[in-house]
Amino acid sequence: MRVGVVGVGCSKFGRRDDVTIQELAYEAVKEALDDAGMVQDDIDLSVVGSVNTRGYELMPAVPVNEYCGFAGKGPLRVEAACATGTAAVYTAYTSIASKMADVAIAIGVEKMTEVDTATSLAIGGRAGNYLWEFHQYGTTFPGYYAMHASAHMAKFGTSEKQMAMVAVKAHRNAAKNPKAHFQKEITVEDVLNSRVITYPLKLYDCSPISDGSAAAILASEEKIKEFGIDDVIWLESAGYASDTSNMTNRESFVGLKATVLAAEMAYRRAGIDDPVKQLDMATVHDCFTIAEIMAYEDLKFCRKGEGGKFVEMEESDIGGKLPVNTFGGLKAKGHPLAATGVAMVYEVVKQLREEAGDLQVDLKNYRGLIHNVGGTGHFAFVMLFRR
Amino acid sequence: MRVGVVGVGCSKFGRRDDVTIQELAYEAVKEALDDAGMVQDDIDLSVVGSVNTRGYELMPAVPVNEYCGFAGKGPLRVEAACATGTAAVYTAYTSIASKMADVAIAIGVEKMTEVDTATSLAIGGRAGNYLWEFHQYGTTFPGYYAMHASAHMAKFGTSEKQMAMVAVKAHRNAAKNPKAHFQKEITVEDVLNSRVITYPLKLYDCSPISDGSAAAILASEEKIKEFGIDDVIWLESAGYASDTSNMTNRESFVGLKATVLAAEMAYRRAGIDDPVKQLDMATVHDCFTIAEIMAYEDLKFCRKGEGGKFVEMEESDIGGKLPVNTFGGLKAKGHPLAATGVAMVYEVVKQLREEAGDLQVDLKNYRGLIHNVGGTGHFAFVMLFRR
Repeated sequence: MRVGVVGVGCSKFGRRDDVTIQELAYEAVKEALDDAGMVQDDIDLSVVGSVNTRGYELMPAVPVNEYCGFAGKGPLRVEAACATGTAAVYTAYTSIASKMADVAIAIGVEKMTEVDTATSLAIGGRAGNYLWEFHQYGTTFPGYYAMHASAHMAKFGTSEKQMAMVAVKAHRNAAKNPKAHFQKEITVEDVLNSRVITYPLKLYDCSPISDGSAAAILASEEKIKEFGIDDVIWLESAGYASDTSNMTNRESFVGLKATVLAAEMAYRRAGIDDPVKQLDMATVHDCFTIAEIMAYEDLKFCRKGEGGKFVEMEESDIGGKLPVNTFGGLKAKGHPLAATGVAMVYEVVKQLREEAGDLQVDLKNYRGLIHNVGGTGHFAFVMLFRR
Repeated sequence: MRVGVVGVGCSKFGRRDDVTIQELAYEAVKEALDDAGMVQDDIDLSVVGSVNTRGYELMPAVPVNEYCGFAGKGPLRVEAACATGTAAVYTAYTSIASKMADVAIAIGVEKMTEVDTATSLAIGGRAGNYLWEFHQYGTTFPGYYAMHASAHMAKFGTSEKQMAMVAVKAHRNAAKNPKAHFQKEITVEDVLNSRVITYPLKLYDCSPISDGSAAAILASEEKIKEFGIDDVIWLESAGYASDTSNMTNRESFVGLKATVLAAEMAYRRAGIDDPVKQLDMATVHDCFTIAEIMAYEDLKFCRKGEGGKFVEMEESDIGGKLPVNTFGGLKAKGHPLAATGVAMVYEVVKQLREEAGDLQVDLKNYRGLIHNVGGTGHFAFVMLFRR
């Protein structure tokens, strides 16, 4: 059964002291409902994704659903660390494809700025191997990705400058995205001169702590016909995988096995053998600049080790061979954990519908990819969308 | 596509200081794998249900999956308050029925005794309407269900003695279940003389704070044939619903609308119009004795208002018209939140396979029902299983 995206919404990302978590969620939900031309009663099922970094709201799905008008619709919340957003989309998708629902909404929402940065980093560490690495070594997220970066530099000669170029591209795109957390362009020198967080990662190599929400409404082909919706972005294929959370058990530090496996599953199901030729754009999980470089390789946009060159040659710029993170990425658009994966759907839908304004990519295949990673590669989802 | 349960496991419920949360989960996982004749590599997808009352382990799916050998399999965690277990089963089911997986395991695990009782009750309150009722009135879970009980008594003349009989039946069954938290029979007088928690609910009207885990392995019909498994309990039908969490917005206090709607959905899909005749047993969500009485009515085992009489007439006893909570229910088997819904699958599978020993019910239809409620009726799942 074909399942399509019929409505998307995304809140302004950033420091959102002006709203409660419920109001923040509704910002995206309202836009998605309006976009689909639907009201709450048209939705059968609501899936709320929230890592819930705040902790004190132990069960965020209940107040979020209530406030958004889905009190009768919401049977569950999902969580998969930073991949929580795509986990929500996955659950909405499988609910429809298994005929348990005709129309489902995936909501991703997070208020992260209410806790201090140290706590957020600790929470990040907990998505790592809490009982071992975090407690023994105090490894936080920049620490994990610094290991990836230094391994990649040592093995492939990837440079700090190449990593910086990922950040520069992200900020350039985000500057034209009114919903992005950061709206200021930066230079390679800005990145290289910013303070070291964990060598070789500097401040501007890291995604920020952001508040935000996103929503996507999915429907069965039958229901789409019934509603008379003709501009549909189909969820063509999905792949998932996970990997050990214990870094000492990983086979390699220069890539994420979960990404490789999730991409293989999604590509196999959609008959993709040359992603660069068969995709028009991709949004990948760039929690740190090195993560985007590894994603190019793990998603087969280039060969392993050539990710640095891929960004340096401007292949992932808008106008390049395969534009990546056209709305600014986690790096500059912001990374409100659970909102991120759903906001990726927002981006790919806007692009495939040619509604991306100044950030519009050229469309040949009318196909886009999203790639969302949880933890340090514990979870990965790859999904393909096609108009 | 037909989806069947091919393996189930359940840990000993109770105070489990002897194990970590990972080890506790593995107790059930190991039994389920052995029961199915499978090893970890046969599983495509692991869904971890955990409300995670401990709080400090923010993302319990990661260490649980790692320890159980599902590091490569686990793309998500689900949460739906006390209905988290069936939410995990639902997600495993929809993943298979939508062809995203051939074999999936649903794991429910909770360590609740590590936090003090007051905290647990507060957590219960948070599954209620945290921002309003809990903060304003300090309403905890016994308080919510005491409102249900007093409304039911006022409207239908349901008696404290009838409620006590639910507890007596639960303890009688649990005494024969070596995995139950409580293994001691009690009398109606014991219940009536136990201390008042929230009038009219007394200590023995309430389910305990328990640790525990359960696991269920589901597979597609095709995969079941491939494995040559011939004794399969099919997941025949599932229904879900939710309701407002704000008690002041509820239409009625004498039942749970979410249960009614979830049952209607499950019954419609399976063609059930007379549950008492068409089912052999049921396991329902008896977090408090009044909850079981309301469940009889909301699930159409009897007419609204006649639930008290249903238990009094011994209709829900083993040997009665429709045995309910044959393994002791939440009340006496224990209620480790996320484990509860998956343990219900364990019970129905054991019964339908005629492996329930001293607690075996008579089988005519070879069909059983599970009913799992989250919060004060915010979430409800009803599922039908058939051999």
